[in-house]
Amino acid sequence: MSEETRLPSTDAPPSAEVKTEDVEMEQETMQEAQEKQPETLKRKYDDAAAKNGKSEPNGKSEANGVKLEGASTLTPVIVAPRAPQLEYIPLKTGLAYDVRMRYHAKIFTSYYEYIDPHPEDPRRIYRIYKILAEAGLINDPSLIGADDIGDLMLKIPVREATREEILQVHTPEHLDFIASTEKMDKEALLERTEKGDSVYFNHDSYMGAKLSCGGTIEACKAVVEGKVKNALAVVRPPGHHAEPNAPGGFCLFSNVAVAAKNILQNYPDSVRKIVVLDWDVHHGNGTQRAFFDDPRVLYISLHRYEQGKYYPGTTYGGADQVGEGPGAGFTVNIPWLVPGMGDGDYLYAFQKVVMPVCYEFAPDLVIISSGFDAAAGDIIGGCHVTPPGYGHMTHLMKGLARGNLCVVLEGGYNLDSISVSALAVAQTMVGEVPGELATTLPKPETIETIEEVIRIHAKYWKCLQPGHMAVALQSEKSLRLGDSLRTHQANTLFHNHQYITLPILESKFHATLEDQIVASPDIYDCQTIVISVHDPPEIWGLTDALSGTIDSINSVVVDPSQQVLEWAQARKYGVIDICVPLHCDDDYTYNPQLAGQELLLYVWDHYLQFFQASKIAFVGVGEAYSGIVHLLGHRDVRALVKASIGIVDKQPLRAIVPLIDENVTEWYFRNSLVFTSAKHPCWENANGDAIKKPRKKFGRVLKGDSVGMVDIFGERFDEGCDFILDAFEEFDSSDD
Amino acid sequence: MSEETRLPSTDAPPSAEVKTEDVEMEQETMQEAQEKQPETLKRKYDDAAAKNGKSEPNGKSEANGVKLEGASTLTPVIVAPRAPQLEYIPLKTGLAYDVRMRYHAKIFTSYYEYIDPHPEDPRRIYRIYKILAEAGLINDPSLIGADDIGDLMLKIPVREATREEILQVHTPEHLDFIASTEKMDKEALLERTEKGDSVYFNHDSYMGAKLSCGGTIEACKAVVEGKVKNALAVVRPPGHHAEPNAPGGFCLFSNVAVAAKNILQNYPDSVRKIVVLDWDVHHGNGTQRAFFDDPRVLYISLHRYEQGKYYPGTTYGGADQVGEGPGAGFTVNIPWLVPGMGDGDYLYAFQKVVMPVCYEFAPDLVIISSGFDAAAGDIIGGCHVTPPGYGHMTHLMKGLARGNLCVVLEGGYNLDSISVSALAVAQTMVGEVPGELATTLPKPETIETIEEVIRIHAKYWKCLQPGHMAVALQSEKSLRLGDSLRTHQANTLFHNHQYITLPILESKFHATLEDQIVASPDIYDCQTIVISVHDPPEIWGLTDALSGTIDSINSVVVDPSQQVLEWAQARKYGVIDICVPLHCDDDYTYNPQLAGQELLLYVWDHYLQFFQASKIAFVGVGEAYSGIVHLLGHRDVRALVKASIGIVDKQPLRAIVPLIDENVTEWYFRNSLVFTSAKHPCWENANGDAIKKPRKKFGRVLKGDSVGMVDIFGERFDEGCDFILDAFEEFDSSDD
Repeated sequence: MSEETRLPSTDAPPSAEVKTEDVEMEQETMQEAQEKQPETLKRKYDDAAAKNGKSEPNGKSEANGVKLEGASTLTPVIVAPRAPQLEYIPLKTGLAYDVRMRYHAKIFTSYYEYIDPHPEDPRRIYRIYKILAEAGLINDPSLIGADDIGDLMLKIPVREATREEILQVHTPEHLDFIASTEKMDKEALLERTEKGDSVYFNHDSYMGAKLSCGGTIEACKAVVEGKVKNALAVVRPPGHHAEPNAPGGFCLFSNVAVAAKNILQNYPDSVRKIVVLDWDVHHGNGTQRAFFDDPRVLYISLHRYEQGKYYPGTTYGGADQVGEGPGAGFTVNIPWLVPGMGDGDYLYAFQKVVMPVCYEFAPDLVIISSGFDAAAGDIIGGCHVTPPGYGHMTHLMKGLARGNLCVVLEGGYNLDSISVSALAVAQTMVGEVPGELATTLPKPETIETIEEVIRIHAKYWKCLQPGHMAVALQSEKSLRLGDSLRTHQANTLFHNHQYITLPILESKFHATLEDQIVASPDIYDCQTIVISVHDPPEIWGLTDALSGTIDSINSVVVDPSQQVLEWAQARKYGVIDICVPLHCDDDYTYNPQLAGQELLLYVWDHYLQFFQASKIAFVGVGEAYSGIVHLLGHRDVRALVKASIGIVDKQPLRAIVPLIDENVTEWYFRNSLVFTSAKHPCWENANGDAIKKPRKKFGRVLKGDSVGMVDIFGERFDEGCDFILDAFEEFDSSDD
Repeated sequence: MSEETRLPSTDAPPSAEVKTEDVEMEQETMQEAQEKQPETLKRKYDDAAAKNGKSEPNGKSEANGVKLEGASTLTPVIVAPRAPQLEYIPLKTGLAYDVRMRYHAKIFTSYYEYIDPHPEDPRRIYRIYKILAEAGLINDPSLIGADDIGDLMLKIPVREATREEILQVHTPEHLDFIASTEKMDKEALLERTEKGDSVYFNHDSYMGAKLSCGGTIEACKAVVEGKVKNALAVVRPPGHHAEPNAPGGFCLFSNVAVAAKNILQNYPDSVRKIVVLDWDVHHGNGTQRAFFDDPRVLYISLHRYEQGKYYPGTTYGGADQVGEGPGAGFTVNIPWLVPGMGDGDYLYAFQKVVMPVCYEFAPDLVIISSGFDAAAGDIIGGCHVTPPGYGHMTHLMKGLARGNLCVVLEGGYNLDSISVSALAVAQTMVGEVPGELATTLPKPETIETIEEVIRIHAKYWKCLQPGHMAVALQSEKSLRLGDSLRTHQANTLFHNHQYITLPILESKFHATLEDQIVASPDIYDCQTIVISVHDPPEIWGLTDALSGTIDSINSVVVDPSQQVLEWAQARKYGVIDICVPLHCDDDYTYNPQLAGQELLLYVWDHYLQFFQASKIAFVGVGEAYSGIVHLLGHRDVRALVKASIGIVDKQPLRAIVPLIDENVTEWYFRNSLVFTSAKHPCWENANGDAIKKPRKKFGRVLKGDSVGMVDIFGERFDEGCDFILDAFEEFDSSDD
């Protein structure tokens, strides 16, 4: 018998890190297995005992001097039945809800408000409580807040927050002001409502605010103390807009901030780090303010921002707001630039930023400032997050902090939307799994926003660093990449083809434009000229996965417009190559579109007029094409210019402005071709319907099948060349 | 009273998408709220009823012509108590286990195997079953497989897979061969064990394989049919290495592949897409083979690969294996290049690849090929995944496919490790939350591996495209970025400082090296020369978040070695600047280290000898520094060369090879400084202990505080300059 056991080639033999008793037990079974047919287990044990001789009273037998445990048939191995060692599932989900929070309401001032009440409506919390009952998560037929609400959820009694608790975040002046509303007369209440920043008051506001705040505290405490596995605080008025010294945005006291400070103070050993995730569609300025310099609380907010125009209407919610002092990096704002965000956008943000950062932070408690105003159906929020979307986000957050999660209601104004959304969250909290997402892919704007957030936060979070470490772009000793590429391009033409520069002798043009116009040496005398007007080259490259620096070995400079030069040179045409820079280092007013227009006019006025050529064709690539269209409208070029080809990827179409006479538009339409990307926006109108043909003033526009300048060029270039040859009345094919 | 309600500025007023009854109900409460102090709810209802007049028997009242529901105190709103509408948590977790799978075993051929048995040990499944009992997840004191195992888990009876089921994956020849082992004599069994690819046979192998396969099928069926919420199949022999026509790697039948094909065939309406996630530390070649051209099954595997050297020892598990035909893109291999992967690496792979791809695929069923050989303690696997690591991965996969998850045992060879790991998985499946991870950050090798996987799969998965779309780098019309940057750099020196080229007149040097040596015009006559030898510049840039093309506007060329030139020029020294390319387009044998060495020797032999200078200092940056060290050992430079400064980031240290005489090493040590990155590997030995001082042959090596060439340079450059001045015996400070 061969000694060698065939094991996987590179692996060492396993060491016997097993208890000897188990080995012996198994030896017996394996010997049995080798020598007999399969039998019942009982008979095996019988035979083993018989074969191996005497049994000992404790069940051990000896066989060949090797002890066997459990070989006796009378006392098999027993594992005493145990209560399951479970920490999480035996607990219920806490629920904080109290009808007394329904009395804070806006005093009606017109009949209109009966039809169209204020969005921060007392019914919000009632409707959520009601749907939990309808779904059987709680058992409370009267819906007034019974004490025993069933097997899944546990009622958390809501109490008023104390003065001391509130003063951990707010100023005494603010607290006293809110307290004073309890006794104000009606005119004063209405005046304060009018003058406040989207707040209202009645005689129940102070109590409601104290209850909302205290309910949040009690919900968090119940989670931290292990009384419940997680908790849902269905409270109003909301809290995340309330600043230390002012109410705002329907918020009076900053519920989540007060609760977080309370937990950090009272449970210093079990809770040292808290994540506050704010998925309310508005930025939680109050919460951010409370912890802006506090590294113990990581505040993450996803919200509509739109350059600070969306409520609260300041730049405090911008991605550049990262915290200050010791809290730098512990505020993460994810600001949406456009409305209409859906499941895919939130999922993308979670995958790229929220979850990696939270895992790295490793919190002891997670609090979700859960506004449901990003839900589908909420007109104020204008977004499309579905109940499964909220379910998935809850499921992901539940994996952190050993499931210590407290979800606190903030905003959300469509009563049906907030109900189904809150139900999905509650179901996930009690242990259900989330449903199917509507979309899993983000908008392009989301991808760019997330990229910006990652760039900003890469210096604070290791998980965001791969590929983003090389961030110092403002070194004085550095050189703009675009400049060095154009210079090299021009130098190659000088050396290899004896090109000359056509200098620009007007001072209004910036010095950056010096090398931008080069021409073949025969340009003054040749009969036919092709003029290539283009953007700077693209660079396709690989970035180092760790540092993000660009791998100059594996990066290439891609400039499809060079094909124009090669084609024209092969046909012995004169060539002018004009590169219009997309930016200018020293001049922030530089506009590439205007620069291109001025360049083309200059070339026409000072050069083309004086050349011998009788036929000219333009080929415009990218943004630079706008300069050609401008020229064709502002000068009477029709005697000389036979064709104009434009190739655009994402750049907008340019309309000819017929200053010369009204026939120019028709002439332009007949003598031009403009090829666009397959996804160019000109092929769809505002409603999303397809447009067959853009208007003539844009030239003859054709839709390509490709995306990306290189591919569009590759697909259409020959067609453009044939068009030019046709216009030049040279009927050869362009297959050189 | 003002009519205007102050709403957030950019939002339209909410529309009243609420039921009229609710509005009216609330009107009542709000009117109450406005006019009274808070009262008990009962009294509110009483007062409302009194105020509003008559009640109707069904509980409706009229007030001001507006119907109010439930205003009567006798019949408040009732939501009938309902059974909770839960789909998931009422179900148990299925468990497939059968003692009969313990009889398949290796026939012992030596006493050694008693001490050190084959790793695919019958005890594996017993130990997992035992720990589930000890943790109270199942109730089976005798551990023999009771039918009723308690409230949390449900026994799934294990049956033999049928011939038809097995033939969905395997060839009849293979099936017949395995069947024949049941009757083979001992010599034949041993011979087949010896000759097979890491398999063994005894008379119970055929039955064990059928049970293992059938158990897997039944576990998946129980999940799909909704009998259990998820299922754990504790089975052996494992399956994922078994190919259609051959067993291998301890596997006889491909359990998961047979089960997946079975489900797709028998439940075509409820299961159209399956994810098979294989976190066994070996590549599941059998499973991949079964579905390589099948787009219905997404096979994702994370495994040790090490360029195909790790078992199974082929390149079938490489990242480039993506599937074929309609299945292209539906195989995702994540191949680890080194051992020792831990929680952070697996989490990183999940966050960057596994979860985004799975969300985009949107499966109906998830099967996990769950080997536990990547667990901490498994010597064969050599990795460090902790039980919380497996818990978190399970929690994340549980969020997919509405929780339809089946976990099937594959490998895993340390009996203690697989027990605690399987327990963590089972706990998460029944509803517990995962514990704390050991690490959350990946190794650099992992980051690079994941980047490669993303680049390969970006064409198949939209979620991987952002930043990775510009992949066509082999365009003929493109220009190497590195070349054009060096040319520009040289041109600038020519123009601005009248530098000259020092031509290389030996044909053995490649033409790429033409512009690589430039010198100040006074180089022949000056007394003191500083020679800067460096790698090509770094490019720091932003890539477009969507396409990944490099933004040439916002990218900069960063070349810290230029500071050397500026310093030397300011001190009116002669300057030679040598750029050693890191690659060469046409020459795949080009080695930058050798090229640098040859260049420096050439410069010494053909130029430096003949210059008037009496003092020379070298400054080497990056890989290029190796050329300097080579020169200093191979030529007697000590009369002329006064100092050598090296600045390295990640590049290895270079030892001087003292060919001249044995004093050169000491001379080099005294006259050099080498600054390294804070994280340079030379500061740690193989055991991870700190090294205080590298050996003298590497020069005087100092550890910087920074990482990245630019920062190291910025930190240490002045110190290097002072060292040179000192060596030149010019005692000015370098503060120019």
